Amino acid sequence: MPCDKDFQAESPIFVTEMEKMIRFDTDYLCGAHPEVLQRLVETNTELTAGYGSDAHTQRAAALIREACDAPDARVYFLVGGTQTNATVIDGLLAHHEGVMAAENGHINVHETGAIEASGHKVLVLPTYEGKVSAAAVSEYVESFYADDTYEHMVAPGMLYISFPTEYGTMYSLSELEALSSVCHRHNIPLYVDGARLGYGLAASQGTITLPDLARLCDVFYIGGTKMGTLFGEAVVVTNPALLKHFVPLMKQHGGLLAKGRLLGVQFEALFEQGLFERIGAQAVRLALRIQQAFRDRGYAVVIDSPTNQQFFRLPNEVIDRLSAHVGFELWGPRGAEESVVRFVTGWHTTDEDVDKLINYL
Amino acid sequence: MPCDKDFQAESPIFVTEMEKMIRFDTDYLCGAHPEVLQRLVETNTELTAGYGSDAHTQRAAALIREACDAPDARVYFLVGGTQTNATVIDGLLAHHEGVMAAENGHINVHETGAIEASGHKVLVLPTYEGKVSAAAVSEYVESFYADDTYEHMVAPGMLYISFPTEYGTMYSLSELEALSSVCHRHNIPLYVDGARLGYGLAASQGTITLPDLARLCDVFYIGGTKMGTLFGEAVVVTNPALLKHFVPLMKQHGGLLAKGRLLGVQFEALFEQGLFERIGAQAVRLALRIQQAFRDRGYAVVIDSPTNQQFFRLPNEVIDRLSAHVGFELWGPRGAEESVVRFVTGWHTTDEDVDKLINYL
Amino acid sequence: MPCDKDFQAESPIFVTEMEKMIRFDTDYLCGAHPEVLQRLVETNTELTAGYGSDAHTQRAAALIREACDAPDARVYFLVGGTQTNATVIDGLLAHHEGVMAAENGHINVHETGAIEASGHKVLVLPTYEGKVSAAAVSEYVESFYADDTYEHMVAPGMLYISFPTEYGTMYSLSELEALSSVCHRHNIPLYVDGARLGYGLAASQGTITLPDLARLCDVFYIGGTKMGTLFGEAVVVTNPALLKHFVPLMKQHGGLLAKGRLLGVQFEALFEQGLFERIGAQAVRLALRIQQAFRDRGYAVVIDSPTNQQFFRLPNEVIDRLSAHVGFELWGPRGAEESVVRFVTGWHTTDEDVDKLINYL
Amino acid sequence: MPCDKDFQAESPIFVTEMEKMIRFDTDYLCGAHPEVLQRLVETNTELTAGYGSDAHTQRAAALIREACDAPDARVYFLVGGTQTNATVIDGLLAHHEGVMAAENGHINVHETGAIEASGHKVLVLPTYEGKVSAAAVSEYVESFYADDTYEHMVAPGMLYISFPTEYGTMYSLSELEALSSVCHRHNIPLYVDGARLGYGLAASQGTITLPDLARLCDVFYIGGTKMGTLFGEAVVVTNPALLKHFVPLMKQHGGLLAKGRLLGVQFEALFEQGLFERIGAQAVRLALRIQQAFRDRGYAVVIDSPTNQQFFRLPNEVIDRLSAHVGFELWGPRGAEESVVRFVTGWHTTDEDVDKLINYL
Repeated sequence: MPCDKDFQAESPIFVTEMEKMIRFDTDYLCGAHPEVLQRLVETNTELTAGYGSDAHTQRAAALIREACDAPDARVYFLVGGTQTNATVIDGLLAHHEGVMAAENGHINVHETGAIEASGHKVLVLPTYEGKVSAAAVSEYVESFYADDTYEHMVAPGMLYISFPTEYGTMYSLSELEALSSVCHRHNIPLYVDGARLGYGLAASQGTITLPDLARLCDVFYIGGTKMGTLFGEAVVVTNPALLKHFVPLMKQHGGLLAKGRLLGVQFEALFEQGLFERIGAQAVRLALRIQQAFRDRGYAVVIDSPTNQQFFRLPNEVIDRLSAHVGFELWGPRGAEESVVRFVTGWHTTDEDVDKLINYL
Repeated sequence: MPCDKDFQAESPIFVTEMEKMIRFDTDYLCGAHPEVLQRLVETNTELTAGYGSDAHTQRAAALIREACDAPDARVYFLVGGTQTNATVIDGLLAHHEGVMAAENGHINVHETGAIEASGHKVLVLPTYEGKVSAAAVSEYVESFYADDTYEHMVAPGMLYISFPTEYGTMYSLSELEALSSVCHRHNIPLYVDGARLGYGLAASQGTITLPDLARLCDVFYIGGTKMGTLFGEAVVVTNPALLKHFVPLMKQHGGLLAKGRLLGVQFEALFEQGLFERIGAQAVRLALRIQQAFRDRGYAVVIDSPTNQQFFRLPNEVIDRLSAHVGFELWGPRGAEESVVRFVTGWHTTDEDVDKLINYL
Repeated sequence: MPCDKDFQAESPIFVTEMEKMIRFDTDYLCGAHPEVLQRLVETNTELTAGYGSDAHTQRAAALIREACDAPDARVYFLVGGTQTNATVIDGLLAHHEGVMAAENGHINVHETGAIEASGHKVLVLPTYEGKVSAAAVSEYVESFYADDTYEHMVAPGMLYISFPTEYGTMYSLSELEALSSVCHRHNIPLYVDGARLGYGLAASQGTITLPDLARLCDVFYIGGTKMGTLFGEAVVVTNPALLKHFVPLMKQHGGLLAKGRLLGVQFEALFEQGLFERIGAQAVRLALRIQQAFRDRGYAVVIDSPTNQQFFRLPNEVIDRLSAHVGFELWGPRGAEESVVRFVTGWHTTDEDVDKLINYL
Repeated sequence: MPCDKDFQAESPIFVTEMEKMIRFDTDYLCGAHPEVLQRLVETNTELTAGYGSDAHTQRAAALIREACDAPDARVYFLVGGTQTNATVIDGLLAHHEGVMAAENGHINVHETGAIEASGHKVLVLPTYEGKVSAAAVSEYVESFYADDTYEHMVAPGMLYISFPTEYGTMYSLSELEALSSVCHRHNIPLYVDGARLGYGLAASQGTITLPDLARLCDVFYIGGTKMGTLFGEAVVVTNPALLKHFVPLMKQHGGLLAKGRLLGVQFEALFEQGLFERIGAQAVRLALRIQQAFRDRGYAVVIDSPTNQQFFRLPNEVIDRLSAHVGFELWGPRGAEESVVRFVTGWHTTDEDVDKLINYL
């Protein structure tokens, strides 16, 4: 390996060289939303059984079922997104099956091969703006079985999509319905990675709801890590035939938290008094303020995202100037004269942060 | 499967039927030690880079290196014990190798096959009181290579031990030295599962220290979950040749926490002002008070444990009477007339709790 | 690793230092039975489609179904035993399940962790003379589900037995029926490794037949490699609910032979004119001649095997003297004064070979 | 799954509806070359030790080392191509690494996910005519390490190419040298899948030789199955630092043949008296006769292949007419008016076969 030295470093990837006053790098820069933290503090000294068998976890599951209008759904809590994807996908696929996904899907690019490490191929679908179409799914499955040698190829065993996508784009309700329909026609589960689901629902302005997801998907997860919890993702299984032995699978994948109630407590906080919606709405509103500000100054909006992620093409000199004061990420390699950048808002972003950013523009 | 119904339940294993006033079931019943929680609250609104590249994590690693007197060790933070064991063992073994362990070792019994799920066999060694001997290791390795058909068998590629063991027993310093010596003679890494390391060090009364572990092991982990953090285990790699690409492996195993600083902050709290030692000392002192109380009443001490886990044989009627007021676990199946039970103290246990327990005896 | 040098050698394990005149080391020392070879020669220039879709393979499957009196069974052909075990077991188990087996079962000892390499734990049952009892299976499964923490343990997902066992011992029909019954009561598939099945059936003297196996097992394989083919094992699936996607699994496990008809042709030869039975009967008769000869000379018969494997305890000087003329294997380590040895007959063994052996005794 | 019924069928893929007089479907339709078969017959009754430790296997390895002018190379024999690729790639990669390959590489398309089943991702490179360029490799590796988040992505750990490719195209010597150079500069092993290597060497007309491959690759395999053996592939390891424990890995992957000498005997036959070269030269000459015949009749040559695989675009009516007498494969889906077809010659193809084909044109 060319880079043993780097890999040997104990700290991953980025080195934080400074603490910037305002940061739009991503939505997991901060701790927990104060209401979530408050709940963790209040319940800290309770003594409860482990691994999620406590009353908080049961209640959080009930609240999520209610929010999803899915009284029979099963709800499981895991710690992080890659862990959740790897565990769910491993549980849904037979040995000879792979998971269809967009080429730039998180599982295909940014999970260090966690899906393959549990034995499954990611089957790449044609992709537009981070999305896949029902037609592409149908074409993939039908071509597969039309090929005489299909037993020598990895069978499409499920569909993975992100909502919203890695690019901040969104499926419309009718697109989701078409995907759901094509999957069910082919008897293939539809799984939605909802790492930023709360922001997506807010961005949909009510056109897509949790009950819609519960109705259209077989399994999806509601991300907490990027939505105000310290960590935690809630897996919702609406298809009763699937993931029948999920708890031992969680344990095997290292995702069964000893003090499982921490997940329950945090999701109670999110779902009890509308915090989940409030966080989403606020972050999306601020993201659109940012978008408008860049538009007003004549900068190109690279992807027309209604969510908490915004992508612009900026001259490198603007990037360098902004970087002195504001945190954000290059999206792809730096170009010769201009580059694409990403600005992300989160539960912690305030109107003051956006004011300052606009000031620096 | 005979038990689909049970496995389908979303909540694992135990159902908590009540909230008892005092509980000695295990050491992960409670949230975080107040000093740890305080630190999480204080740092909550900091904005830092993700995945452990923040200053808190760097500082926690430095504090641990210092406590271990191992300035060149690498330190990594993961979320839970099974995850840590699976990731470390997967990283240490070649494909054709397995991990030697005690028959009742945690990886062989209580991790739902996480080691096998990443492709490796657990090679069972003869065991006494949860421990394995240097002689048994030596015998295993030598018999293996003496067998003409060894290429058809799983090669012993590393040794896993727990300190303290699942039974609350402890290796003496000379036993650890013998294990280290036999491993190094055979060029086999020694890995110590320290889920309850802090209690073990306290119980050793200074005869075994973190620098001893750092000197004798190739890799070990310092458990946080059972020692006052919300979650978190610190992996210490003292052999520079091993685990050279551990960060991507953590990611692949679902163990790279997005808000990685949460681990750093908590281990800073544990290692800054002696909290780790204080927690250990207190819990061990209280466990020995419990042991003495049972002895005083004439009950059999099943395993002579100096640690925070205590094992007694009690008449079933005593068990039933105590159970009405106190939480503790049956250790193995219930006998006809008497059964073995386990009492565990933790950072949250107080002298008042023990007074009450003694009162109920 | 202590033995890099040895492992690096391109040739495995044994070095054949000489060609002995008569060899009883094992039953795969020789090529194919002349009738099998003849068939390969006769069909050599046929042009047929690959991967087992040819008429020979279809016909071999039909012959086996007929011999098993199992008109609805599916039959698949693989190349070798470890490959067969790994593929079948991987296909039968869910992720969180392991395979119960005798401690000295081939999958637990001599397959270099192939079962674990595909993610599954071997769950060891108490063993007597290489066998496991229905009571032990029942006890394992019931204890498992009686344990509150069973979701943290590997669930018993199937039973693996060998017929005959590694020790040349055999289950009686009533023992097989009891195993079948306990497995089906617990909804756990019973799989029989029949690497030496032909010798076992012959040794049973008609008390156990292929139809018995087909009736009692869910899946079993009929070994060819040790019964006169160049290579090849025939998997018989009698439970229609199992192994529904076995062909892609064979491919994934590297067990789908391009010129698949070679397997069909050989099993046609074995099952067309009673060759399978003739080979078994002959080898067993000669093995019993050997057993009688050793008994007559007063040597201890270590295991009372009615099959083609015989185990004796011999003084080391006898072993050394015999070794100059006859091939056989030490069974376990060499003792101080005497050691256990194994003599195996095969399709290639003749009365003349046995005469010579007796002469050397 | 939509096609349970099909997958449940015991016989894979194709159903051979008839025995055509001449077949150009593929190069594994027939048994062994007569000289190979003769050797198997001659040695059939030898008694030798198992698993490749016999003298034939040793001698075959020596002959291959000599043919490769690589006196220090290690040579291992496996049964089939998918098995060989899966075992070698699993042995070469660390957990966090994947294998770079052409999009249409055999491992990415036609091995039912065998690479992923052992935990590794196939990293797709831009491809032209089935080939990958040194520039593409370099670009992939450099972009990877230039990305800040590389620890979240699968590291390029080796390069897989086929020689010749799936499309019958070939790397020139300078292209191979460039690939070798870029791999070694990045410290990444170069592995060549030589399923049809013999035909490729013949097609190169002496511009590329076995010693060239041995010099430029770290590991490659010499295919036997498609070159006149019943089965068998010879892995040549020229980089002494790699695959140090390959024999146990072969066993674990189900690829260690009990009667291992069958592989040795067949490769002795191939490499003793130039049979390997003769087979290649004859098949390539006949393939070029076919190509010329199609050209002469004005049909489009789709890929300019100098090897034993030829690809033409034919009107569907011609395809249907030919199919009545001649076996060949559609290459991709059938078009509306014309389709691409593949004709393959093999060791068994004769001038008479080609005469007949031309007659039917």
